[in-house]
Amino acid sequence: MIRSARRLERIRRVLARRQPGLTVVMENIHDPHNVSAVLRTCDAVGVKQVELLYTQEKFPRIGKKSSSSANKWIERRKHISVDSCFATLKSEGFVVLATCVGGGTRSLYDIDLTRKTAFVFGNEHRGVSPESARAADLQVEIPMMGMIESLNVSVAAAVCLYEALRQRLEAGMFDDPQLSEEDLHSLYETWVTL
Amino acid sequence: MIRSARRLERIRRVLARRQPGLTVVMENIHDPHNVSAVLRTCDAVGVKQVELLYTQEKFPRIGKKSSSSANKWIERRKHISVDSCFATLKSEGFVVLATCVGGGTRSLYDIDLTRKTAFVFGNEHRGVSPESARAADLQVEIPMMGMIESLNVSVAAAVCLYEALRQRLEAGMFDDPQLSEEDLHSLYETWVTL
Repeated sequence: MIRSARRLERIRRVLARRQPGLTVVMENIHDPHNVSAVLRTCDAVGVKQVELLYTQEKFPRIGKKSSSSANKWIERRKHISVDSCFATLKSEGFVVLATCVGGGTRSLYDIDLTRKTAFVFGNEHRGVSPESARAADLQVEIPMMGMIESLNVSVAAAVCLYEALRQRLEAGMFDDPQLSEEDLHSLYETWVTL
Repeated sequence: MIRSARRLERIRRVLARRQPGLTVVMENIHDPHNVSAVLRTCDAVGVKQVELLYTQEKFPRIGKKSSSSANKWIERRKHISVDSCFATLKSEGFVVLATCVGGGTRSLYDIDLTRKTAFVFGNEHRGVSPESARAADLQVEIPMMGMIESLNVSVAAAVCLYEALRQRLEAGMFDDPQLSEEDLHSLYETWVTL
């Protein structure tokens, strides 16, 4: 397959900005449009891999529309329980942040997101499970000043992930590759075939 | 109509945080789900009124689902042309920011959003019109580090509006009412009947 020099350059630049220290746990997110929107935002902020925690729902079938193609550029890892998902992430050094609505939690804007950070986003109706909220290192709240008491999950994910991007931009974390030479090379070899 | 003390208190608190100096121009946004999501985010960050600039599409019919009910809490003003919309906003002291993808624009994170700020968000396919981009005070870019070259419009709106919220939180703009006594009173009288 022949790829233009421009595309190869784009792939190199995107890989040089990928943030292996930023991930998302999708916990039973149901609607394929939401899943697609979250993946698209993940791609935009440099998430390399997302964690799929589907214990009550099936991971939805995602359409092939261009808006959904972020799919290709994000690796996915499956987990069978909250325990094993969080144990894996913590063993890898991630701080696990459950995003919650209301109630004694820490504001998104008071947290250092330049550390290895895993955001947990929950199902559209049930939110993050009580189990996940308990097992997380912190319960994070997005400040809300209005009459409606929740945000769409893809909006909540965008707000959190872009705050991480903002902090990481300020810290210069997009200036030098965060991936190892080996990962950069092997991902490049894969991506040029996509 | 009888409202609980708790609800009346909530209405008071929300009105005390409304930001008349932050608005959104919806330019031909087509999909009712996107319109609903943008309105819901507007409510969450304290937008009091949005500007409808529907020159090529009709403003979509919004469903009555709970997730759409932000509708009730946001005033809407219609404009018939880019010129009259922008002239009105500028005469009111707003800095008009067209959100664009790529190309010689200023990063969202390099702009002071504590000033009177109007964000323009465009149609899902066409984006902000060239006319609006030209007439705006600034073309604002959301940094994107990934392979996909655009964001969902409701995600883009969330990223911009929450950056405004973050800056305004830091500046203490949610600590004291931004609305006049008169507006606080008249909105309260309306809202208790909704």
